[in-house]
Amino acid sequence: MGENIGAAARAMLNFGLTGMRLVAPRDGWPNERAAATAAGASAVLDQVEVFETVSDAIADCQYTLATTVRQRGLFLPVVEPAEAAPELRRRAEGGQRTAILFGAEKAGLETDEVAHADAILTIPVNPGFSSLNLAQAVIVIAYEWSRQVGFEPMFGSAYDDAVATREQVEGVAGHLIEALDQAGYFYPPDKRPTMERNIRTLMSNADMTPAEIQLFRGMIRQLMRGPKPS
Amino acid sequence: MGENIGAAARAMLNFGLTGMRLVAPRDGWPNERAAATAAGASAVLDQVEVFETVSDAIADCQYTLATTVRQRGLFLPVVEPAEAAPELRRRAEGGQRTAILFGAEKAGLETDEVAHADAILTIPVNPGFSSLNLAQAVIVIAYEWSRQVGFEPMFGSAYDDAVATREQVEGVAGHLIEALDQAGYFYPPDKRPTMERNIRTLMSNADMTPAEIQLFRGMIRQLMRGPKPS
Repeated sequence: MGENIGAAARAMLNFGLTGMRLVAPRDGWPNERAAATAAGASAVLDQVEVFETVSDAIADCQYTLATTVRQRGLFLPVVEPAEAAPELRRRAEGGQRTAILFGAEKAGLETDEVAHADAILTIPVNPGFSSLNLAQAVIVIAYEWSRQVGFEPMFGSAYDDAVATREQVEGVAGHLIEALDQAGYFYPPDKRPTMERNIRTLMSNADMTPAEIQLFRGMIRQLMRGPKPS
Repeated sequence: MGENIGAAARAMLNFGLTGMRLVAPRDGWPNERAAATAAGASAVLDQVEVFETVSDAIADCQYTLATTVRQRGLFLPVVEPAEAAPELRRRAEGGQRTAILFGAEKAGLETDEVAHADAILTIPVNPGFSSLNLAQAVIVIAYEWSRQVGFEPMFGSAYDDAVATREQVEGVAGHLIEALDQAGYFYPPDKRPTMERNIRTLMSNADMTPAEIQLFRGMIRQLMRGPKPS
């Protein structure tokens, strides 16, 4: 179905895969519904190659994985996406052409088609509810593949760029303790070491940024002035 | 949208997650379209809890991740699914209640909603094409979470259950070499050690099962009889 082709193209491109081959597409090729569903993944659809048989489609490949959710009685190794991805990467880096075969939405691949592959690829799912559709299976496998490429997150953490130093943390803890001391907080005196330690731990665990420490110090200064005359 | 709720429920249950909470669903709750799209994931939909605000929805949680594709200028750590999953597991095993927040399809979460979280969760995608929809994001994160649970593949490998022993491999190699010797294959005689070694490597690399070795031995026996009289 065109919708499945489009959704698969979109899933692929999200994770950096572009080489799509179709075997005997039901409604011919090109397919308008595929283009509509692909939602901009034209980098995949524009270079689709069409073949008559699975055998033709993988003729130039050195390593092919066939996705299936059923045991086929074939003497092929069975691998999960997390195992397959590094193997695909290793082979690609060695110059091999690799392929992942997906069957049509309902029927999946025929056993004779799976037999063309070097191994069976299957996604471990909830044994009580396994109903991944074609595009969902493509997403999971493409995602796992992309982890080998190592895309960067779309943005960094403002937090990571700005973690306070130990000196800054000690500084604000000391400021707070001084303010509390002036306010007569440390009582009885023999508990003071424990109370101080708990305050230092609190400030340390708060994982404040320098800006947050400034914010906190400002609040302490204001509180030290006592209540505003009404 | 009901369709997104249903697709998310289905994605969750495929990977073993069942606790869904909705915040102010646009079309109320329950929702017929959600049930239709969920395609059997009633274990999720039947126990949906509905809240008025994000704050209410995560009030009893000890650790909340907010998914977003945009930098928000918040001083929150940014984690990827593969980092988040072991952290969620560690906390869950310690008895904590954890949550992952997803925004509505187009708009995503508001920055004030993200600010309720302990960290931002983002899926690294192709910087040239990042268009994961809500259900796709749920699938990737639920899949990564499920890897911590460690679902078994739906079926084992017939191959793994039946790898030939070294003795069986040596046996068939010896059988083949004997047949070739009778057929006068090893010529010139000084090349024989190399030719034999290549044959043993070929048979060893073939990774045959015991059944395949029997098949192969049967073929050798038949070929040794020579051409059938016509």
